[in-house]
Amino acid sequence: MDNRCIGVFDSGLGGLSVMRHLIERFPHEDFVYFGDTARLPYGTRSEETILKYVKGDMAFMDTFHVKMVIVACGTASSVALPRMERHAYPVYGIVQVSADAAVRATQNGRIGVLATETTIKSAAFEKRIAENDPAAKVFPVACPLLVPLVENGCIDDELAVLGVEKYVSQLREQDIDTLILGCTHYPLLRGVIQKAIGGKVKLIDPGEETARFVERILSSGEIEPADVRKGEHQYFVSDSVYNFSAMGSLLLGKDIAKQVKKIDIEKY
Amino acid sequence: MDNRCIGVFDSGLGGLSVMRHLIERFPHEDFVYFGDTARLPYGTRSEETILKYVKGDMAFMDTFHVKMVIVACGTASSVALPRMERHAYPVYGIVQVSADAAVRATQNGRIGVLATETTIKSAAFEKRIAENDPAAKVFPVACPLLVPLVENGCIDDELAVLGVEKYVSQLREQDIDTLILGCTHYPLLRGVIQKAIGGKVKLIDPGEETARFVERILSSGEIEPADVRKGEHQYFVSDSVYNFSAMGSLLLGKDIAKQVKKIDIEKY
Repeated sequence: MDNRCIGVFDSGLGGLSVMRHLIERFPHEDFVYFGDTARLPYGTRSEETILKYVKGDMAFMDTFHVKMVIVACGTASSVALPRMERHAYPVYGIVQVSADAAVRATQNGRIGVLATETTIKSAAFEKRIAENDPAAKVFPVACPLLVPLVENGCIDDELAVLGVEKYVSQLREQDIDTLILGCTHYPLLRGVIQKAIGGKVKLIDPGEETARFVERILSSGEIEPADVRKGEHQYFVSDSVYNFSAMGSLLLGKDIAKQVKKIDIEKY
Repeated sequence: MDNRCIGVFDSGLGGLSVMRHLIERFPHEDFVYFGDTARLPYGTRSEETILKYVKGDMAFMDTFHVKMVIVACGTASSVALPRMERHAYPVYGIVQVSADAAVRATQNGRIGVLATETTIKSAAFEKRIAENDPAAKVFPVACPLLVPLVENGCIDDELAVLGVEKYVSQLREQDIDTLILGCTHYPLLRGVIQKAIGGKVKLIDPGEETARFVERILSSGEIEPADVRKGEHQYFVSDSVYNFSAMGSLLLGKDIAKQVKKIDIEKY
């Protein structure tokens, strides 16, 4: 048994959609979540800036007794994870986990990817998919408006439909059978995206896939699960917690605003 | 004659829409522009974080021989300007300049304000308008989606129309005769906003009003204008300059990507 906690971080609150799956699936595990709300969004910044920020995020994770860290940010796992120095614990990224799941899911080898500009520019999904299946064809689409839409509660209204259409229309002629939701905000738009691309296309949700992946890690014995007890959850952000409540409820499915602490990430 | 330069800063590139008016109106003046692209957006951050950032922005301005500084960021001029320590030169904010212009423009004393969440939350427009005209009624609307829309080139398409409608519809029953575009990105949506609110409502554009305001300062003798010569323009950003080109062209009306230098704002 290994009662060290599982660390999860994101540029902001989007990673809570991954946390949601993790805490549901692993009630005995302790979790620490960090959302770098003072420096979000990562998705439009340069690689150099992202590398610097992720170094700080990992230094903060290092202040806990973690057994693994999940990089629950598409941009950070695309840009920073492949170049990260070794830590005393394994570090997994939602991009890598989702890419692997898409390779397993596809029948025709044609995979679409919706993600932020910086993630798409990094070609991280293509690289990871090519490592597993060199014959697969990947169709990446940068979707810069989808995060602002979700963060403003546009998840099933006319604006959401138009915003999703702007990007998904580029994939309609590509005969994909699998579509990766390559950013943790996008599962909130799942219904609208599924409708836009058609019911036959399998959507890959980073939160679901990460929960499955951690399940495999913990059951393989690679890392031991925690004792049978109630897991504790800690939440940290780097900017004021004042608007945590609405987004937290939307992404995590419950309001934890009162449990959130603010830290100064520039110290790390 | 005073050949010191005029400093202009913003959280990002939106302030270029103010620069555009200034460099057109004052061809003999030297200008220094700084866009804090590594730490944008300011509009969704806490007051504490904005105060810290603006302190750094002003410290960077201090490294030039400036005769005045224009805070071309709605959020920074709302939150930080009223609490800023005294500098050796005057500092003006687009919120104050635009609020004063709206008070002069209104006939019926009913003024609408479109701005970012943090600007609206600060009530800076209301406070400034109340100082000039205690009887005026102000109708503030936070418009968090408009900056992302403009930054993704949605300035006259269906998404722009829907996005603008989401906010302007809240003003339609208020009988306003003046509407402040309280963020430097919004003048790009001017056509769509004018159509949504109706042709009779006077729109207040922060860039236009700032140019008029600086004209008054320079012609009053409060600060001397520069000699008759060709003014020089310097541009700085805090993140990579790679996506400066498209936005620069959109906001400034010309492509100056090659003249832009990157600085490390965290040193200031």
